[in-house]
This record gives sequence, structure tokens and C-alpha cells, in this order.
Amino acid sequence: MADKIAEIDTPAFVVDEAIANRNIKRFQEYCEKQGLALRPHIKTHKTVHFAKVQMDAGAVGITCQKISEAEVMADAGIDDILITYNIVGDAKLQRLRMLADRVKKLSVTADSAAVIKGLNAAFEHAENPLTVLVECDTGAGRCGVQSPDEAAELALLIKNTRGLKFGGLMTYPAVGGQPNVAEFMCAAVDLLKEKGILCPVVSSGGSPDMWSAKTDGVVTEYRIGTYIYNDRSLVENGSCDWDDCAGHVLVTIVSMPAEGRAIIDAGSKVLTSDLLGFSDYGHVVERPDIKIVSLSEEHGTLNYDAEKSLEIGQKLKIVPNHVCVVSNMFDRIWLRKENGRHEMLTIDARGMVL
Amino acid sequence: MADKIAEIDTPAFVVDEAIANRNIKRFQEYCEKQGLALRPHIKTHKTVHFAKVQMDAGAVGITCQKISEAEVMADAGIDDILITYNIVGDAKLQRLRMLADRVKKLSVTADSAAVIKGLNAAFEHAENPLTVLVECDTGAGRCGVQSPDEAAELALLIKNTRGLKFGGLMTYPAVGGQPNVAEFMCAAVDLLKEKGILCPVVSSGGSPDMWSAKTDGVVTEYRIGTYIYNDRSLVENGSCDWDDCAGHVLVTIVSMPAEGRAIIDAGSKVLTSDLLGFSDYGHVVERPDIKIVSLSEEHGTLNYDAEKSLEIGQKLKIVPNHVCVVSNMFDRIWLRKENGRHEMLTIDARGMVL
Repeated sequence: MADKIAEIDTPAFVVDEAIANRNIKRFQEYCEKQGLALRPHIKTHKTVHFAKVQMDAGAVGITCQKISEAEVMADAGIDDILITYNIVGDAKLQRLRMLADRVKKLSVTADSAAVIKGLNAAFEHAENPLTVLVECDTGAGRCGVQSPDEAAELALLIKNTRGLKFGGLMTYPAVGGQPNVAEFMCAAVDLLKEKGILCPVVSSGGSPDMWSAKTDGVVTEYRIGTYIYNDRSLVENGSCDWDDCAGHVLVTIVSMPAEGRAIIDAGSKVLTSDLLGFSDYGHVVERPDIKIVSLSEEHGTLNYDAEKSLEIGQKLKIVPNHVCVVSNMFDRIWLRKENGRHEMLTIDARGMVL
Repeated sequence: MADKIAEIDTPAFVVDEAIANRNIKRFQEYCEKQGLALRPHIKTHKTVHFAKVQMDAGAVGITCQKISEAEVMADAGIDDILITYNIVGDAKLQRLRMLADRVKKLSVTADSAAVIKGLNAAFEHAENPLTVLVECDTGAGRCGVQSPDEAAELALLIKNTRGLKFGGLMTYPAVGGQPNVAEFMCAAVDLLKEKGILCPVVSSGGSPDMWSAKTDGVVTEYRIGTYIYNDRSLVENGSCDWDDCAGHVLVTIVSMPAEGRAIIDAGSKVLTSDLLGFSDYGHVVERPDIKIVSLSEEHGTLNYDAEKSLEIGQKLKIVPNHVCVVSNMFDRIWLRKENGRHEMLTIDARGMVL
């Protein structure tokens, strides 16, 4: 517990609870107006606390990327979890099988017959089939089948696989890729209809396009992570204002070795090297003259207007370029409560790589 | 315990103990021939296990960047620790004061009167003074006093400060900056002599220049971190061969969505976004045709020669661009023993940001 920012040792990750709660509520309301189910991605906060806030606000369930993250959330009683990942390998398939026994609604994605074969090997003798969505590449160029035809083929394969149940279509679209999503998904759903397959869910997502999210007559669900804290990249693309940024890295000036140069106690081990198109490593709140020009592991080098005051021991608040990766660099959050006090919150799913 | 690579779930950080031990021994011998004391930086391995191997091999002590790292090493009985950092703020100064009571030889660095003032506030009533080295900027442009004159001034200030003891000069040089180090340090030591101050230690370091490290008539100690595992950046600059790389990230192909494109289960949450001048995110051992062209948090996108075989479920070994930052992304190492078996080793000082 810390009463004031001055009592928090740095570097620290400070989250303003009121802002985070407002962000959750605002996008939940937006999705409800659009007729979209909201399934937040826990990758940004990685905490049981905020997963529950998101569920209580009206989310249909949560999204995880890793089984180990889903296990943390299942331990906390979250009962609808989509893992948007191809689960590959015996160790993970065994964990997935065990997880399915204790999560009311568990689903995963797959984008190939090889992945489906592995899933079935784990579930063909299970009491209940595992729900599998087909991942579609609608332009982002990462995972996913390349065409509506392939999507329909895999859906049919899942339907005809004893241990599995077809759960729908899923995509992680490119930024601005909404028209492609609509076109791809409409075509795929039509092909499914021809094969007599119902498509219960079409799941899309992404924070950069959050305020233009819509059903387009086919999308049923939106997945989104960054919106809870927001970050510099989302301010830059117009999705939010600085006042909507709930997550800050609190740092201290530890050296002022030369005119216009200062060093903070936060480097890539805290801010990460993610640039996301920026030329420096974060936005210093209330001091736009300061540029975080380079990072080593434990030092950040600032250039600043030497006519403006700065001193060793002074604390600065930084909005990171990319907040999700920063959550993974800290074991704990300092959660700023509405009364201005700060409480420690463990980042339960930090470092869950498996 | 895992007998084979096939039994290790991915992504995983696998360290070959024989190679790491050989790297430790080889550079220890090199330093002894040069008449340099070796003080390894634990930032690369962050483990008590390897700190002890380094000490047993003949290191005079270890280097840490953070008090929280030094505490972990002190808990394990390491009794000579240099923290190469300006310790700023009451919380850290209190921890430093407590740490000094249980580490036989503890020293820190300082590059300003403000930092020295803070250190003295914590130590002026201590039984024993705290040893403080003056950090010098010999060209890297990070922390450090800017001239030999300033170095001598600060040394005098430390000498005349009741709670502190002058321990010498320290620099983190620019790559290739050895001539500057020699010139700066010789001038500073001469100035100290004029003031009647003995300079017991002149500490330099850095892995990129490890094989040209020498005393130059003034340097007494070398600090180095990456050499224990080595990485792609050190192969690139000629400091080592691929066979000297002890640390690998083991990954699995989880998707092959389009010709020449494959996806691995390791993204920036494991490999980090550190490029270190490379255009992709690591070297895939035995498959130079593969380029890790982009990372999201949990996915790495590979381009590869489609005429060469690759399959979903296949494991690949990656030498990271920058191995130190990868150590911080895993809770545990899989340590490959000489008998070919793998043991789990906790990365004791992972995530120590304070």
C-alpha cells in the first residue's frame, strides 16, 4: 500500500483503476449497441482482477493466447475461455484435455488438418467434444487458412471428427482490414451453409479498429486487449486520448551527465524495445520536450530541452508505446484506487509462455 | 528433468552447460594472462548457479545492475558485489544500507554530487563506509562524468564524505572505445595522484571488445556479461562462433498457412524486439534459409525456402540476437548437462527491476 506516488519505488507499473474501468465499460456499451459479443483478450492486463471486471461488465468470455494463461484464469473461476492459438504437441494437448474438464466453455482455434488431428488425438475419448474455430487469414499474414474454401473444408473436417465440434470462424485482421474480414467471412459462411454447417460464431478483433467494429452482417464477436489500458500507439491512431491511458511506467531520473541528456532507471527490461512505428520509446506525460532516444537493459537515455527544469531523483510518468508487452515485464501492478491510494496487484499470468 | 529435446515443451530457453562452462573458463584464463581482474555481470544469466561457477573459476566478484539482483546474489552467499548504478531514492538507499551489512565487499558507482549526497545520507552513521567508484563517460554517451577533471573532483568529494570510501573509476565504454578509455583513465588517475588520492580499481568492460581487453597500463578490472552464453550479435562481430553459443530458444512450428511462410510459438514475449542491427529476430540453427521476419507477442513469422522441408510440430533452435534480454523472459532454464539430459534451473534474478 502506498499513499502517494512519491512512496512508490521505481521503475513501477502504475494503473489507474478508474480509467481502466471506464475503458472497459465504454467499449462494452459500444459492442452492445453494435450487436457484437465482446470477448476481451487478457494479454494486456494478465490479471484475474481485471478479467473479472470485464466479465462483470458483460463480456461473454475471455480470450487467451496460451494454455498456461487459460489455466490461471480457470483457477480463478472464469468459465468461458477461447484460446486463439494452434495447440501443438503432446504436453500442451494433455494440459488442454485437463483444462476442458474444469472450464464450462473452452474453445480453441485451428488452421490446418495437422492441428485438428492433434486436437482429436487428445479429445476423441473425452466425454464432451472440444469446440474448435477455424482461424482465417483475412490479410494480416500471420496464421489462418488462406481462402473461404479452405475454411469451409476445415470446418467440415472438424464436424466429422469425433472428438471435436465446429465452433465458428475466427480472424485476427490487419489494421483497417474490416472490409476484407466481411468479404472473407460472408463467403465462408455461405460455403458452410451449402454444406449444411451452421456457423455459430464469427470472431474478429483488434484495438486499432475498435471504434469502427461492426457486425457487417456476419461478425458476431469482437476480441480486444489493449483497450483496457490504452497506450501511445492508440493515441497516435486516434482511438483514445492521453486521459484514457490507464497504464503508466513510473521512472526516476538517476543521472544528468551532460547538457540536455538525462538517464532514467528504466530500459528495455521495463519499456521493451517495441517501437510500433515511433522513433523513441514512450511518451513522457506533461513533458513533450523529452524524447526517450535509446534504451539499454536498465537505462533509458533522454534528450530534453535544457532550459526546462529536471533533477536527479525526479519522477516521470511514461505512457509506453505498447502497453501489453510492458505488463509482462513486471511481477506486480501498483493499482491507483479512486481514493488516490495505491494497492499492489499481482500480474497473475505474467510470463506464461507455454 | 527431460531426457531429450523432444520432451521439452516450447517455447523454452535451453542452455548447454558444457559450452557455458567453457566460455567462463576461457575468458577467465584470458583475463589472467592480461593481468586483469574479471568481474562478470550476472545480467546475462541471472542465476545463482552460474554466478558461483564464475566465482569458482576465479572471478574477483560479480557485477549487478540493480539492488534487487544483488540481494538475490547476497542471499546465495556471494560476498563481493559491485552495483554499477546510481542508487537514488530513500527506498533503494535503505535496502542498500541493509545489504552492506551482509556482503563482505559491496560497492556502487556514482556520477554526481547529488547521488553521493544520497549515499552518504544512508551511510554516514554506518559502522563501515560504503565503497563508491566514480562512473566515467568515455564515449558511450550514457551515464558518467564527462571529463577526467570531473572524475577527480567527485573522487575527492567521496574521499571527504564521512560515510563513503573512494573505490576507483568505472566506465561502460562504447564498442571499440578502448583507446578513449585508456586516455580518459590515465588522465584521471594522474589528477588523482596530484590530489594524493590512490585509485585502487579502474573497471572497464563489454563483451563486443572482450578479446582485445587489456590493462593499457591503467585498467585493472573487466566486467562482462554476454560472454557466458554468447549470441548472434557476438558471432556477427567475430567474438565467437556458433558453437560457442550456449543459449538457445527452442520453438515449435505451429502453422504453415501459405507457401514459404511458417509460424512459430515464440514472439516478442520470448525473443524480445531487440534487433541489435539485424533485420530479423534470431538465427535459426542449421536452417540459414529461414528468416524470422516479424514478431507479435506470441507468434513469430518465418519466411523460408519452400523447397526445403518443414512441418507443423517440428522444433527449431534459435540463437537470439541478444541473449541477456531473453534470460529475463523465462522463469526457468532447461540446462543441458554433459550426459545429454536436461535439468530445470530457476532464473533467480529474473524480473528484478528495482
